[in-house]
Amino acid sequence: MATQTVDFFAELEKREKLVASYLKTEEFKDWFYPDQIKEAVYSYVNRAGKRLRPAVLLLACGAVGGKEEEAIPAAAAVEMFHTWTLVHDDLIDNDEKRRGGYTVHTQSSLIAKQHMNYTENQAKDYGRDIAILTGDIQQGWAVSLLCDCSLKGNVKPEVTLTLIRMLESYVLNTLVSGETLDIQFAKQPIESFNPDQILDMLWRKTGALYEYSAKAGAMIGLNTTNTDDKKAVALSNFTSRCGTAFQLQDDILGIIGNEKQLGKPVGSDIREGKRTTITYYAFKNASPQQKAKLKNVLGNHEASREEINKVVQLLLELGGISETKRMAQRIIGEARPELDVLPDSHYKELLLAWADFMISRDF
Amino acid sequence: MATQTVDFFAELEKREKLVASYLKTEEFKDWFYPDQIKEAVYSYVNRAGKRLRPAVLLLACGAVGGKEEEAIPAAAAVEMFHTWTLVHDDLIDNDEKRRGGYTVHTQSSLIAKQHMNYTENQAKDYGRDIAILTGDIQQGWAVSLLCDCSLKGNVKPEVTLTLIRMLESYVLNTLVSGETLDIQFAKQPIESFNPDQILDMLWRKTGALYEYSAKAGAMIGLNTTNTDDKKAVALSNFTSRCGTAFQLQDDILGIIGNEKQLGKPVGSDIREGKRTTITYYAFKNASPQQKAKLKNVLGNHEASREEINKVVQLLLELGGISETKRMAQRIIGEARPELDVLPDSHYKELLLAWADFMISRDF
Repeated sequence: MATQTVDFFAELEKREKLVASYLKTEEFKDWFYPDQIKEAVYSYVNRAGKRLRPAVLLLACGAVGGKEEEAIPAAAAVEMFHTWTLVHDDLIDNDEKRRGGYTVHTQSSLIAKQHMNYTENQAKDYGRDIAILTGDIQQGWAVSLLCDCSLKGNVKPEVTLTLIRMLESYVLNTLVSGETLDIQFAKQPIESFNPDQILDMLWRKTGALYEYSAKAGAMIGLNTTNTDDKKAVALSNFTSRCGTAFQLQDDILGIIGNEKQLGKPVGSDIREGKRTTITYYAFKNASPQQKAKLKNVLGNHEASREEINKVVQLLLELGGISETKRMAQRIIGEARPELDVLPDSHYKELLLAWADFMISRDF
Repeated sequence: MATQTVDFFAELEKREKLVASYLKTEEFKDWFYPDQIKEAVYSYVNRAGKRLRPAVLLLACGAVGGKEEEAIPAAAAVEMFHTWTLVHDDLIDNDEKRRGGYTVHTQSSLIAKQHMNYTENQAKDYGRDIAILTGDIQQGWAVSLLCDCSLKGNVKPEVTLTLIRMLESYVLNTLVSGETLDIQFAKQPIESFNPDQILDMLWRKTGALYEYSAKAGAMIGLNTTNTDDKKAVALSNFTSRCGTAFQLQDDILGIIGNEKQLGKPVGSDIREGKRTTITYYAFKNASPQQKAKLKNVLGNHEASREEINKVVQLLLELGGISETKRMAQRIIGEARPELDVLPDSHYKELLLAWADFMISRDF
């Protein structure tokens, strides 16, 4: 587990910069109009982010012997694809903060109130509208970036088309199904869930795009349309599992993380009543009184800071956090052997370090 | 102008059926999950629609000597692309009806209230969420359909990639800019507009996708990546203008159309305060008292049926409707000569009939 060396973080940062600077290419800046749309489209891009999806796409490309520079537009594409889902999910979850700044709908709504003379309700609608349109544009941007692997690079056009179709049907539909289940679950009785259902939902929400990122990197590296290539499958099985574990860690940080480091509020998952393995295990181990207390606060939008803190304490004491942590470690443990089909290399080491980082990160 | 023969409607219907049945292919049905998402994704598809975009894409393909069957997935793609914009725009415009049924957000909200025990506010959020995710999926479906021109057909992969990039950057961004301007305009003083600004906004909202439809049909028909091909440019200039005229007719029908035939409420543009050439010309010709009356009702969400009716009367009397009608006819008149570069053919006749229909339709 001690593979997280300085080297890994330097390698991660190098790729993060490549992707960020590609997204800030002059060509794109003229695409977005009027100004409020342009600012909204770039807002999350301009903030610090982990860029774990583009990183693993590039590493997968290198791990199969491909040239990483051919995959940079695709790396930028998965980052942009992730970004539009954040913009829409933030609106759906009514979240105010993201990456240390306001979410798109909150920011646009504030501008409408402060600079456009909108009433409270008009401003709320306006914020919603700009966030919807911004995410829509970003989805299109992601697809356009993928096109450039062939239109501006040397990836065979049929490889790129295969990747676009996979992203826009299989991945997108899986991801939306996960988001829909997440919304629906929050309103269903907490007793009605088992961890398998929750893990399936998490995989849909997060694992699928990680799975795709590795597969895209490998297929570009090999310049092949063969989605069943042994190395591509191994890499995507690996990142698919890591993605689910990542989301478990995300759920943990959503309860006991540091707001400043995370850049978003802690406790909103409790107010939204998100169904997580944390609440599942805590509820399972709770006394009738503790169950009543949990039920009272989970999904209660009016819950006070004090009530939230008490529930956080309960989730810790009842083993919800520790059990979820163990589950995330187990999943990463199962993911690692997938890489056995790859020859040993610097890339393989980086991928294993990447996997450890997915669940050891505190931001 | 008398080119609208029975023949034209039969030809239109034939293509409408081809596209509708392609969209209902079994393969796609398994893509969408859970059930509420699946129903929402198909809801507008299952209702009667004009399918003017796919029709003109197929006609453009034929007009350059291409095989229409090669363009069917692309025709389905522009219809689906249009559909997702409807789903998101209906939410943005707070519209309740579309094609004779409830809009996606209204329908999902009703289900949440009636079958899921949601409160009024929870149901409203849920309707919003399902509509956002449904439009997102439909955008991806549109792109996937385009991919199939090459992955399942004989269009060169680089042609399809060129078309995907054009749709997902140029067309999408133009369209969203039009929608954003439309939203922003509605809150700005009615005196601050001129018809050119309104026509530019309408072209962005509607003309750009019509322009694209013809260009895509022609490029597929010629199997070329050359976006500057003379015939492709002529056809897309033609449909680009027709698209703006179509939207002028849409604005007219939004004021004096028949609700039942239209499948959506008449008068909501007045309540939303949409800036149209109709309101522009009426306002220009109005007395100070009439101006005050118009200002009082345009953009007033609480306006009564009677107030709306009086404004409709004013818009008619002050020449807003007739002036807009003339403008639409003038634009179609300017569009027609674009087709002179094409040899005479059955397709060319159908395209000219299609142009007339764009502004003579009453639904």
